Amino acid sequence: MAATPAWPPRSTPRLFVDAALAEGPRRIDGPPAHYLLSVMRLKVGDAVKLFDDRSGEWLAVVEATGKRDLHVQLTTLLRPREPVPDMWLCAAPLKKGRVDWVAEKACELGVARLVPVLTRRAVVDKPNTDRLRAHMIEAAEQCDRTALPVLADPVKLATLLRDWPADRALFFADEAGGEPAAAAMRARPGPAAILIGPEGGFADAEREAIRALPRAVGVSLGPRILRADTAAAAAVAIWMSVAGDW
Amino acid sequence: MAATPAWPPRSTPRLFVDAALAEGPRRIDGPPAHYLLSVMRLKVGDAVKLFDDRSGEWLAVVEATGKRDLHVQLTTLLRPREPVPDMWLCAAPLKKGRVDWVAEKACELGVARLVPVLTRRAVVDKPNTDRLRAHMIEAAEQCDRTALPVLADPVKLATLLRDWPADRALFFADEAGGEPAAAAMRARPGPAAILIGPEGGFADAEREAIRALPRAVGVSLGPRILRADTAAAAAVAIWMSVAGDW
Repeated sequence: MAATPAWPPRSTPRLFVDAALAEGPRRIDGPPAHYLLSVMRLKVGDAVKLFDDRSGEWLAVVEATGKRDLHVQLTTLLRPREPVPDMWLCAAPLKKGRVDWVAEKACELGVARLVPVLTRRAVVDKPNTDRLRAHMIEAAEQCDRTALPVLADPVKLATLLRDWPADRALFFADEAGGEPAAAAMRARPGPAAILIGPEGGFADAEREAIRALPRAVGVSLGPRILRADTAAAAAVAIWMSVAGDW
Repeated sequence: MAATPAWPPRSTPRLFVDAALAEGPRRIDGPPAHYLLSVMRLKVGDAVKLFDDRSGEWLAVVEATGKRDLHVQLTTLLRPREPVPDMWLCAAPLKKGRVDWVAEKACELGVARLVPVLTRRAVVDKPNTDRLRAHMIEAAEQCDRTALPVLADPVKLATLLRDWPADRALFFADEAGGEPAAAAMRARPGPAAILIGPEGGFADAEREAIRALPRAVGVSLGPRILRADTAAAAAVAIWMSVAGDW
């Protein structure tokens, strides 16, 4: 607590702005302005933290407030954009609540890229990427992150495998069993990805296609059956702890 | 798929019964009967799987159906109760949705015991243990588990620490930094527990009291701030993968 500076206060609102930020004046409108004016009730002279997923996190001071917009002055770059481990999470879309949760956890745990993968048994064939991105942004705002995972366009599994980069290990949760996840990941440092199937699991032909990929490594997440969202969070946490930056 | 027996079918409903099961006849009433009769529409001759968190999982056949109850015959013990790694998750109660999720994940990931811990900054002081237990039961039913985590009575942090068993390591997520989680857990096999604070974190005095425990080990979950529910799932997954049964 003693280390916390008196200014800006701990309660300072923190917002993602989807535009390159720089020192100087800036106008904020739209939903962010509504949030700052009507929810946080910011007044002239109040502080706000803005981050852009590009330069980093900025301290700004409110200079003028309108009905639907406000003008702030960006004064200080508080932190440059944080480095993010080179981990992709490739996951089949799940039901609404669970896929939102996966997007939130992917951001918190620090994946660099979230790739919605369309598989045969997927319950959802058109994931709502706007909603997923909104959940990642909220997670970043809540968790003091200065970087957002890239949200890739949804891709069919066959296309993902066809275009797979030769330098990136692909760890996939194989219900048929595989190497223990921690050992498999520790043994393969460098660019990596985790592939999680839909609730119904991969179809046999899909699993064969994944196994045929030279960089694919089937991993086991233990003797208990995990829901797809649980498997995704568990596998990312394990990778971060043995091969990432934890 | 080839390995799946034709009977009982994959769609066979699976239910937890809070009573010791044995071969022979059994009457089912209450909400489980409503679920089997009105939701799953079981008829005489249909199969149902029952598990009791004691003997294991049983195959039963419906022998008679009433308006509000049904009679089944338990014919075969399909699996004995599974062994569970000796891991306790001690977690401060969180807001409704997030603590329910922690209970679900604790069950899926395989913790032996979930202990709601009351801390100074907890947003909830009376966790709804009935609801937490219901979420763990549903997770076990969904994930083919034959064992349920024990749900301990909520306990104050000071009491938990005072009565701490000398043979059990206590890994706590220390925002002030600690040993990397995977290495710390791998180096300390045997009975273990993970302690996760509330969203607001532990108070300084609480952190000092935890650190004073001889078996306490502060661990780091990486450079990014994690929500309490994310930290709980991540820490359990890492322990399972390096010191548990994954």
